[in-house]
Amino acid sequence: MPSQKLHLVPLGGLGEFGMNCMAVRYGDDIIVIDAGLMFPESELLGVDIVVPDITYLIQNREKVRGIVLTHGHEDHIGALPWVLTELKVPVFGTEFTLALVENKLEEHDLLDDADLREIRAGSRFNLGPFTINPIQVTHSLVDCVALAIHTPLGVVIHTGDFKVDPTPTDNRLFDLHTFAEYGKEGNVLVLMQDSTNAERRGYTPSERAVRGKFDEIFARADRRLFISCFSSSIHRIKLAFEMAREYKRKVALVGRSMTEAAEIAMDLGYFDVPEGVLIHPGQIKDFAPQQVCVMISGTQGEPMSALSRAAVDSHKHARIEKGDTVVLSSRIIPGNEKGIYRMIDHLFRREADVIYDDGSNPPVHVSGHASQEEQKLIMNLVKPKFFIPIHGEYRQLRIHADMARSMHGSVGQVLMLESGDVMEFDELGARKIEKVTVGRICIDSGSRTDVVEDLVIKDRRHLSEDGFVLPIIAINKLKGTVESIPEIVMRGFAAGSEEGFVREARRIVSATLDGSTPEEKADYGVIKEKIRADLKRFIVKTTSRRPLIMPVILEI
Amino acid sequence: MPSQKLHLVPLGGLGEFGMNCMAVRYGDDIIVIDAGLMFPESELLGVDIVVPDITYLIQNREKVRGIVLTHGHEDHIGALPWVLTELKVPVFGTEFTLALVENKLEEHDLLDDADLREIRAGSRFNLGPFTINPIQVTHSLVDCVALAIHTPLGVVIHTGDFKVDPTPTDNRLFDLHTFAEYGKEGNVLVLMQDSTNAERRGYTPSERAVRGKFDEIFARADRRLFISCFSSSIHRIKLAFEMAREYKRKVALVGRSMTEAAEIAMDLGYFDVPEGVLIHPGQIKDFAPQQVCVMISGTQGEPMSALSRAAVDSHKHARIEKGDTVVLSSRIIPGNEKGIYRMIDHLFRREADVIYDDGSNPPVHVSGHASQEEQKLIMNLVKPKFFIPIHGEYRQLRIHADMARSMHGSVGQVLMLESGDVMEFDELGARKIEKVTVGRICIDSGSRTDVVEDLVIKDRRHLSEDGFVLPIIAINKLKGTVESIPEIVMRGFAAGSEEGFVREARRIVSATLDGSTPEEKADYGVIKEKIRADLKRFIVKTTSRRPLIMPVILEI
Repeated sequence: MPSQKLHLVPLGGLGEFGMNCMAVRYGDDIIVIDAGLMFPESELLGVDIVVPDITYLIQNREKVRGIVLTHGHEDHIGALPWVLTELKVPVFGTEFTLALVENKLEEHDLLDDADLREIRAGSRFNLGPFTINPIQVTHSLVDCVALAIHTPLGVVIHTGDFKVDPTPTDNRLFDLHTFAEYGKEGNVLVLMQDSTNAERRGYTPSERAVRGKFDEIFARADRRLFISCFSSSIHRIKLAFEMAREYKRKVALVGRSMTEAAEIAMDLGYFDVPEGVLIHPGQIKDFAPQQVCVMISGTQGEPMSALSRAAVDSHKHARIEKGDTVVLSSRIIPGNEKGIYRMIDHLFRREADVIYDDGSNPPVHVSGHASQEEQKLIMNLVKPKFFIPIHGEYRQLRIHADMARSMHGSVGQVLMLESGDVMEFDELGARKIEKVTVGRICIDSGSRTDVVEDLVIKDRRHLSEDGFVLPIIAINKLKGTVESIPEIVMRGFAAGSEEGFVREARRIVSATLDGSTPEEKADYGVIKEKIRADLKRFIVKTTSRRPLIMPVILEI
Repeated sequence: MPSQKLHLVPLGGLGEFGMNCMAVRYGDDIIVIDAGLMFPESELLGVDIVVPDITYLIQNREKVRGIVLTHGHEDHIGALPWVLTELKVPVFGTEFTLALVENKLEEHDLLDDADLREIRAGSRFNLGPFTINPIQVTHSLVDCVALAIHTPLGVVIHTGDFKVDPTPTDNRLFDLHTFAEYGKEGNVLVLMQDSTNAERRGYTPSERAVRGKFDEIFARADRRLFISCFSSSIHRIKLAFEMAREYKRKVALVGRSMTEAAEIAMDLGYFDVPEGVLIHPGQIKDFAPQQVCVMISGTQGEPMSALSRAAVDSHKHARIEKGDTVVLSSRIIPGNEKGIYRMIDHLFRREADVIYDDGSNPPVHVSGHASQEEQKLIMNLVKPKFFIPIHGEYRQLRIHADMARSMHGSVGQVLMLESGDVMEFDELGARKIEKVTVGRICIDSGSRTDVVEDLVIKDRRHLSEDGFVLPIIAINKLKGTVESIPEIVMRGFAAGSEEGFVREARRIVSATLDGSTPEEKADYGVIKEKIRADLKRFIVKTTSRRPLIMPVILEI
């Protein structure tokens, strides 16, 4: 007879895109599923990443038994450096997930203190009063699991991110049987399921569907081939290596995230690269154009990414020339459209043949998330008493919930939660109780151009301490020229001699502008990021302060 | 024998979205086709609209014979108030187009001085050395024409915006025959064709395809029905009125742009509304929910639009309640995704049933622009010596150009132009000659909440004269509370007693914040726009200055 109550406490990811983090509490024991980040909205100028407010976990510090990761995407592991500086608890993840985590922690000098424990699909382990069974699922990343968490009140299943790919490229099948067994036993209290694609009808195509398009692209390209995908898309990178081998092209990895992810995947044996296929970016120029395939980071038009820089011809090794082919094997994350299309326009101006997701078949990208029919399939297999849609903006949770309500034979009751709600379960049923503090913590981790930099937690509440600096630049968009001396507006930031500081800051900004091409200056994202990075380096060096730096461009 | 050269001079719209404006010059005579605006990028805080730099026309003022409009969309007529303050020339357009223009000019007190001349499809008219034949085309708006411009060097055809809708809802067919005749005569020098949908394969569905979805929606809705579409979508508004009549619902028009467009269309007889169907927004509450259909502006999540305000429950008449249906019968204009999805999330939070374009069939929206097969059809009919893709961002022009290059039997030579290029034609052929000044003029026309306000041309070059004011507000996103006294940063803006001004400005901003709901405060777009509008009213009133006002939100 269960003596305690079970609480599900979403700390992020329910009603917002990213920042996934869910606490599961039974009595005095808490486990945390995932600790992800969110990329900031464009309104939040000057912020690099956003992580969940974990006040609830900090207040219950001694109860937290560990963090269990479902997979290695940033929106599931990206907040770990920040969380682990607050909580010294073990982190559980699969081999590949932990390899990504190790890299991340190492960057922030946190690896030595971390307690990482490898888990495997199908191998149960205990954590406090919970027995956790990781279940193999398919997704755009490798080595992903759902979690079946056995509690005294029944089994809680958390799907993580998933799709039901019947033909995964690594032949590691979605473990339908284990989901089926849980459903048959009839002991599933709650199913928490990924809502990302709740708006999409039908089935998400298999990752293998991309092969047809890649084959067509490799067969047709007669000069350099640049392929960009999410750096964590190991399936996609593997495919590109296979095709490159078949079509006798060397492969260069360009961009830090792409290089890191590919190296981890190769180290762990996710794919083999025969001797001599992989070349260094510096060697690209040594081979004939039709012998080279460049895997390059930057599908989202991020201003400082390798592909964005190549598009405006300011990347050292990745030079895109007339007749080259550039493939964007990715989706457009909402909010990034303008930046991505700006980059695509630049690529066309280089007279490259640009291939991006235009709805044609075979597709150049497929989603990693389950569409409606897959979501229904899992509900039918699992037959939960309670269903909670997770991982989605409000409309996605709502559409997912409405769908679940129509699943009369398989879903008992549907509960809608948002981040901060606390859902309590006992033998009598389920109810929403109090709310806990949740929110978004903005982190300014320094320019992404620095290869390694300490993690700096920059809560906006500290704004009054470090103040802010607004460099204001007037740019003639057409000519790409700067039309006036940069203005420097400051508040709450006493920098010794203010006059001297402003003079020096202006000089720095002018130097950055002088060192940028007209195309960079016409691309506000790029130029803002460059100004911010350079000014920040200067301010940190001369004052050891970390004010918020928000470049403002006035177009004239 | 032609004695002069023909110049085509795109002043906007080629290599950018919106701001369509094309000068056609033969010797000392210039005509201008369209004078559109562009909505500003989000980076351009504090700017309402963007219009083309018409230095070229101003320098050749005495040569300009008139402006000929293809149709009444903002990206084709929106710059007229600004252009007409610089050039006193006649404006030619169809009946419906001129009705929209009249409204616009009246708002800016420019109507009395304007020389508007009505044209009709099929009725040729002369302008300088040109004979112009307007050709009826189909599009999302009514009364649209392409222009066949007879010049001594041959016929130049400008398609305007079009699709080839075989079953237009107003039964005014696309005039394929006239296009065919021009092609048969073999005298078409240049075809300039709309590139908006050059990325889309196949055919764009007919406007009639939406009817099936609307029927389904009206049949199912058992409470209030809110329908939003582009206010210029007269076909769509007409359809909604027809369905409302069939399903016995009263119709209220909410939002200024929706009301204006519908009234013009009714005045001109585009559709009939039987007595008693149309009700005033104030009467919505007097009818049972299942008896009301509200046509409401704001498909793009514009912060101050009627629908955005209704979504956060701050619209006086349009109150959305549990079980109501909200239909977004429109596309997402790239760049607006975040704002639109934020609005949709708010609508779901009101527990409305929200229907938006999710790719399902029948569609809730169809495009007004030709897809690839329609574009090819027109090329085949017209058989131009030269082909120039117009109306599109660079990638769209490029894809359109590449497609045209594959049309061996029907297209002679393909020319790629961008805004500012000058293409010269004579008996020997065509060549790009000089470049002319083009660019974007930013206009801050005052808050859109003011019903009528003088047009204020606010070129950013005048920044140094009127300066800028940055109100900086720290908002706790979660709680929707304001966490500090607003900061006011100013430059180049001497406002008498600075201390007194700052104190007063802070008070204004605080009052705006106090008068806003937590939901409004959590929606940065809305709250920024409100602060800007209120602060601006105060500054104009007390100082008669018009500094740039850019609210900055710090999320904490």
